Amino acid sequence: MSYLNYIDENFERFKSELFDLLRIPSISAVSSNRPDIKRAAHYLKGQFEHIGLNNVDLHDTPGNPIVYGEYLEAGPDKPTVLIYGHYDVQPPEPLDLWQTPPFEPTVRGEDVYARGASDDKGQSFTHVKAIESWLKTEGRLPVNVKLILEGEEEIGSAHLVPFLRKHKEMLACDMVLISDTSMFDKNVPSLTYGLRGLAYMQVFVQGTNRDLHSGAYGGAVQNPLNALCEIIAGLKNKDGVIQIPGFYDDVVDLTPEEREAAAKLPFNEQAFKDSLGITEVFGEKGYTTIERKSSRPTLDVNGIWGGYQGEGAKTVLPAKAGAKISMRLVPDQDPKKIAQLFSDYVKKIAPSGVSVIVEEHHGGHAAMTDLNFYGLQAAAKAFHDIYGKAPLFAREGGSIPIVADFRKILGVDSILMGFGLNSDAIHAPNEKFSLQDFHRGIKTSAKFLEHLATTPKNE
Amino acid sequence: MSYLNYIDENFERFKSELFDLLRIPSISAVSSNRPDIKRAAHYLKGQFEHIGLNNVDLHDTPGNPIVYGEYLEAGPDKPTVLIYGHYDVQPPEPLDLWQTPPFEPTVRGEDVYARGASDDKGQSFTHVKAIESWLKTEGRLPVNVKLILEGEEEIGSAHLVPFLRKHKEMLACDMVLISDTSMFDKNVPSLTYGLRGLAYMQVFVQGTNRDLHSGAYGGAVQNPLNALCEIIAGLKNKDGVIQIPGFYDDVVDLTPEEREAAAKLPFNEQAFKDSLGITEVFGEKGYTTIERKSSRPTLDVNGIWGGYQGEGAKTVLPAKAGAKISMRLVPDQDPKKIAQLFSDYVKKIAPSGVSVIVEEHHGGHAAMTDLNFYGLQAAAKAFHDIYGKAPLFAREGGSIPIVADFRKILGVDSILMGFGLNSDAIHAPNEKFSLQDFHRGIKTSAKFLEHLATTPKNE
Repeated sequence: MSYLNYIDENFERFKSELFDLLRIPSISAVSSNRPDIKRAAHYLKGQFEHIGLNNVDLHDTPGNPIVYGEYLEAGPDKPTVLIYGHYDVQPPEPLDLWQTPPFEPTVRGEDVYARGASDDKGQSFTHVKAIESWLKTEGRLPVNVKLILEGEEEIGSAHLVPFLRKHKEMLACDMVLISDTSMFDKNVPSLTYGLRGLAYMQVFVQGTNRDLHSGAYGGAVQNPLNALCEIIAGLKNKDGVIQIPGFYDDVVDLTPEEREAAAKLPFNEQAFKDSLGITEVFGEKGYTTIERKSSRPTLDVNGIWGGYQGEGAKTVLPAKAGAKISMRLVPDQDPKKIAQLFSDYVKKIAPSGVSVIVEEHHGGHAAMTDLNFYGLQAAAKAFHDIYGKAPLFAREGGSIPIVADFRKILGVDSILMGFGLNSDAIHAPNEKFSLQDFHRGIKTSAKFLEHLATTPKNE
Repeated sequence: MSYLNYIDENFERFKSELFDLLRIPSISAVSSNRPDIKRAAHYLKGQFEHIGLNNVDLHDTPGNPIVYGEYLEAGPDKPTVLIYGHYDVQPPEPLDLWQTPPFEPTVRGEDVYARGASDDKGQSFTHVKAIESWLKTEGRLPVNVKLILEGEEEIGSAHLVPFLRKHKEMLACDMVLISDTSMFDKNVPSLTYGLRGLAYMQVFVQGTNRDLHSGAYGGAVQNPLNALCEIIAGLKNKDGVIQIPGFYDDVVDLTPEEREAAAKLPFNEQAFKDSLGITEVFGEKGYTTIERKSSRPTLDVNGIWGGYQGEGAKTVLPAKAGAKISMRLVPDQDPKKIAQLFSDYVKKIAPSGVSVIVEEHHGGHAAMTDLNFYGLQAAAKAFHDIYGKAPLFAREGGSIPIVADFRKILGVDSILMGFGLNSDAIHAPNEKFSLQDFHRGIKTSAKFLEHLATTPKNE
């Protein structure tokens, strides 16, 4: 039986195995979910062993374990691909907006709804099942494969980088393959050659040493909530231009060719607005929506809090306020430098009467892959085989900081073979993943291994 | 036995009865505490009956019940005083900042710590015990008294106003007596002759129809959290001047005499800053701290929320944000007009790409009492008897909207005989009330009744 037939015949089981994984609430941001993280890691270790990988192991870190397995029997003249993914997920809140519980995978239409369905359990599981399909039908893989799934991607991959450094030899490879991005649109496969970086900050504003009555004290002391809003409002101007001095200094401008290519992408702004329920887009003046969301740096408040949030009215003058604020970065912005510029500027514009603490949460560099890279070409062929059309090449607005780390530590480029859709609602309620694309993803991954074995390496 | 001796001899029991009342979490802002509201009302009804008031009743309203009792046997030639207070309390959150649980009254030093200790259970209970002390020793009261305690003061007294209108005859009186304000300082008794009004608003900002991934969409759509901060930052300028057009139009400026009197009040700005743990005060340019917190209008954010507030980092571009914003008003600002001006301006300055809803929560007029009012003079004598010094006359920054309603509906002024302290942490964690002032408060209230019977009425 061919591996493609095997995939068809076993697809019901593949789905049910994925659903088992989706039932585990492996939320890395919440420490009380640590046991679930462990359960997810052990489940994947069992999978790695079952499909026939070698040297399967759970590598402990000071944080969450890293699941590893390999197949090196294709021999030293064949390329080695390191397949990377993550089994941790974002917190599911706000829970009341989920139509079905986030950790009870539910099929509606052709989609499965669950936290992590697309990001990244469903997408990374395609490779597990592609490897199984090769090994169970051909008894071999056409290239060498190292499969690594981590459990801290959603909180900044703090322990993966030391792990890469420590196991540089074990992880040596010619490229990294990652499925943690989106296709340009349904049935429009895409290869992402650029990703944005990230600098994630927290700002705490302290006013008085305790909450006060807004009648007795209001008007006479600085209110940390008003002060925080003033700071945040000062970070961008009305044209969406970030006001932090030096913020744009290292930005590599889009080339005229890139802008032309971006303008030709099949993007319908009205449909975009309709899908989001908005009547107007908003972003940095002088750039198109596609450029704004993929190739330009940003600054967004991810969360804000302070004072009374409950039912009814409370006339409190709160003692403190806080916000989570993150910036998406582009080549060649340095997350550490940007974090410092942000921190300096926030302190500079903070109004008098409050004290401000700025913390750097985590960050990562932006990344770009050469369009002629043979791994990228093999991926394009695989997409063509399974989706019946050549993929688009695009830059994407998200951040996979680890891509920059792979380049730095292992010296290799990453192939971003996304099977998700922008409408998957990742990081949001009602996250979903197309089961059709789960099916095609497994096949595309399997085809990629075949094409990689025969595509000439770059000189 | 004189009523003053009775107060001394029964003070331990008075405390324990107050503590029983403080144990009831009668939070009016939270609908699930409705049964506690009823328990508190019934407890007070029992007290009214026990001390010997007549026509004691719980008056049902569409909201929380109003407890009423009266003594009218002093005769029609004696003044009638309506004593008003409230038995509902603010929500106790944030709970983790309480040293002892908010509804377990705990004595530390000379203070009792509990939600409602000062605002307003402890203060209003002084009158209950003063009446008891007169009736149990003299068998009579020297003036006519109507005692009314409501359960919705902390949420805007929505059902008290219709009650006043409906029972205008039953509640007819020469003045209202309220203990729900603070003394100027420990051992510095004060009579508040001015109160600020209030307009309490909620602002909701909606961006896209769902939470988005800040990588995939960031930069291309308006972020409602950034937008909300921009709106709030636009409400005041760097000098603390409110920017809403027309906001100051009806403000009655402080007279030179008032400013002079305010400047002579025993106020130490360094001690004020030290007690709040701040190094700088902040407020409307051109006014002193005392003026800012008592006689000038304000605008404060009381609460703000949106996006991810949990542990760790979530790269979400939230769909919506909200804030509670209140303005303290002074004569002759009209809360309805101010609410409309606020709403219009917020909508006007809202950035594009979001929709904004502004809701009016509740409001009330500012209030001023004539300094020569005979009720105020009787109160001053009572303070002098018990505290050994004449009280200061001051304006206070808080709002008791019902004071304006008493003037409008019953045609009478209110005497604000505060026994609290600004350091009582009302509306905040670790609210407290001095047991010494509880004791002196009962005596002062009893003395007030005596002086009121003999102080010549104003012509």
